[in-house]
Amino acid sequence: MRILVVPSGFKESLDAEQAAECMKEGILRVLPLSQVQTLPMVDGGEGFTKAIVKISNGSIIDKEVTGPVGEKVPSHFGMFGSEMTGQTAVIEMAAAAGLRLVPRSLRDPRKTTTHGVGELIKAALDMGADRILLGCGDSGTSDGGAGMAQALGAKFLDASGQEIRIEGGISLAKVTNIDVSGMDKRLKQVQIDVACNWFNKLCGENGVARVFGPQKGATPEQVVELEKALEQFASIIERDFGIDVRDMPGSGASGGLGAGLHALTGANLYPRYDIIMKYIDLDRMLQETDLVFTAEGSIDFQTPRGKIPVEVAKRAKKHALPVVALVGTVGKGARLNYEHGIDAYTSILPMPSTLEEAFMHAQKWLTDCSESSMRTIMVGLQLANRLMAKEQVS
Amino acid sequence: MRILVVPSGFKESLDAEQAAECMKEGILRVLPLSQVQTLPMVDGGEGFTKAIVKISNGSIIDKEVTGPVGEKVPSHFGMFGSEMTGQTAVIEMAAAAGLRLVPRSLRDPRKTTTHGVGELIKAALDMGADRILLGCGDSGTSDGGAGMAQALGAKFLDASGQEIRIEGGISLAKVTNIDVSGMDKRLKQVQIDVACNWFNKLCGENGVARVFGPQKGATPEQVVELEKALEQFASIIERDFGIDVRDMPGSGASGGLGAGLHALTGANLYPRYDIIMKYIDLDRMLQETDLVFTAEGSIDFQTPRGKIPVEVAKRAKKHALPVVALVGTVGKGARLNYEHGIDAYTSILPMPSTLEEAFMHAQKWLTDCSESSMRTIMVGLQLANRLMAKEQVS
Repeated sequence: MRILVVPSGFKESLDAEQAAECMKEGILRVLPLSQVQTLPMVDGGEGFTKAIVKISNGSIIDKEVTGPVGEKVPSHFGMFGSEMTGQTAVIEMAAAAGLRLVPRSLRDPRKTTTHGVGELIKAALDMGADRILLGCGDSGTSDGGAGMAQALGAKFLDASGQEIRIEGGISLAKVTNIDVSGMDKRLKQVQIDVACNWFNKLCGENGVARVFGPQKGATPEQVVELEKALEQFASIIERDFGIDVRDMPGSGASGGLGAGLHALTGANLYPRYDIIMKYIDLDRMLQETDLVFTAEGSIDFQTPRGKIPVEVAKRAKKHALPVVALVGTVGKGARLNYEHGIDAYTSILPMPSTLEEAFMHAQKWLTDCSESSMRTIMVGLQLANRLMAKEQVS
Repeated sequence: MRILVVPSGFKESLDAEQAAECMKEGILRVLPLSQVQTLPMVDGGEGFTKAIVKISNGSIIDKEVTGPVGEKVPSHFGMFGSEMTGQTAVIEMAAAAGLRLVPRSLRDPRKTTTHGVGELIKAALDMGADRILLGCGDSGTSDGGAGMAQALGAKFLDASGQEIRIEGGISLAKVTNIDVSGMDKRLKQVQIDVACNWFNKLCGENGVARVFGPQKGATPEQVVELEKALEQFASIIERDFGIDVRDMPGSGASGGLGAGLHALTGANLYPRYDIIMKYIDLDRMLQETDLVFTAEGSIDFQTPRGKIPVEVAKRAKKHALPVVALVGTVGKGARLNYEHGIDAYTSILPMPSTLEEAFMHAQKWLTDCSESSMRTIMVGLQLANRLMAKEQVS
């Protein structure tokens, strides 16, 4: 039997890779001879590069870049591929401009920059990347990707024609022209695919300033200021490049990095799991699978709205594969998932316990639950044999 | 598909019948057309008669009897059967001499009597019972069954040849002769089968006085006094009937009622589930079953030592049936049960929660867990079809 394990991480207790290992161990306790493939799923945020590189058998390249507050920070990107397939670079924006890299005392999203992301793209081009998979998420910036573009040679000019040094989203308020003629020519040859939260928009009611500004440390006044600056940026982009990024799905990913990547480097924006699962070739793996396990900290009515278990299940169902989800909490409206490709779900909790205990024992409990789920599935197999034998007799 | 649901109750939250109904509902959500039979399992204690009567399609007969402290109490027994099979009476000792019938202020196991149990037996004989299934458990007495025997005509005599009125175990200290010549003659015609906790012994280190005396309200001095009286009783029985009940398995059931029933009425003692499962014809039901669900509040290293899930599983395995156990708590050493016929077990808890929350939501959670377990089993069935199709292709 060939089993594919595609879990998310369990927040605050297990990352996706640990979860996958637990599940594999539990399954192998029941079926030591089965082929269990693990495919820890990540969104585009922290840990993205390492996870994709691991799955793709690639390498991590360390690279110092300009961090979100302007100081140098150690960062990294990934490379994988072959002469036949070409070289793919994997870049995680959070590794160069993540919220984690912004000291608490400096958390002002008007003033943080994605400059380092541009430096990582440049480094990937220097390494001969033919295409780039760029993950958004966990960002500490809201500069519309202007910092990134500047690092790649774009010029942002004010009304007097002077070049503006982009030092965060607030700088965009003064921009009246964007000159991309000096940008790295190699950008035209490479394909950049961006894994975005598809619901993040650059402007408006649900725009990055309003939704994420406060999380990144902005006061209400700063949110308004930032919102105006991003709106100004969007109007220049629309005027000069004919692209309206204001309400474009994914344009608001990582503080508007999605918008900048799309408008200024020609990158393609995608719903994150669509593009991630394409890059890791989930589809091919599903073709060689009989049964799929997924996992997430919680399953509820929101899971069908783009969470990993249902994203995995949707694709598994194209191959008519059964999907079992193991979760920490079975939350409100979880039954809805039965209509979205999840055949069964189970909580890993073995007894009354606090959330803290659940975090503490997550590893053991997920392993044991994987075993008991696999055992329960085997009951079904046993039953199938029994019912078949009965049919043959009658 | 034919599914048999044989749960225990969940202490402090669901009785066995409620548990069975929840499980049935959960299973039917997945397989509305399957045949789901419920067989709520009880030990011989409180609720025993009603449960057996329900399973056997019998009737409850109300009957006032002498209670454990000598006052009249409402009680009942059950009757089922047909002309072909004969009439079977079901008697629950706790319904006539249970601890619940002893007011807290009168909890002195030296002075409580099983007289009412004898009255129930007599009533059953009056109704034409051909055999009697008598359940022990939850008793409030420790009179070695002497009260029961006296109600059926046995005479207990002291050294001066005077008849002693048995008013609890303490009365046995004075007994020097037992005259059974006047006992109800019909006892010789009927078969009395007693469902005992097999580990309960009348005398010694693990005897009823020491183990259960304190639970029933005895002080340390009273325990010693009671122990001596029961020892005296056992020695008279050995001398006059040639039976050593001191260390006999089940002799200590319900404060020695097992010993009295065996020595004075010719009853057969059995490990409780052996005889209960025989009476309810579990074996025949298993013959007509494809899958077994059981349940208990907790599964752990003690479950293989005579608890319902493993007692059920042992019998199911004789028919090569798969067995799934749904439990509140997966406790220490639960894995041991995998070697005792339990194919898989799952906790019903869907999220971190306190014991109180688990009690409060037990009904919903057991129902939902039954559904998700059944769904997981169906994944196995689906998988079986898939693997079979693959085999046929290759």
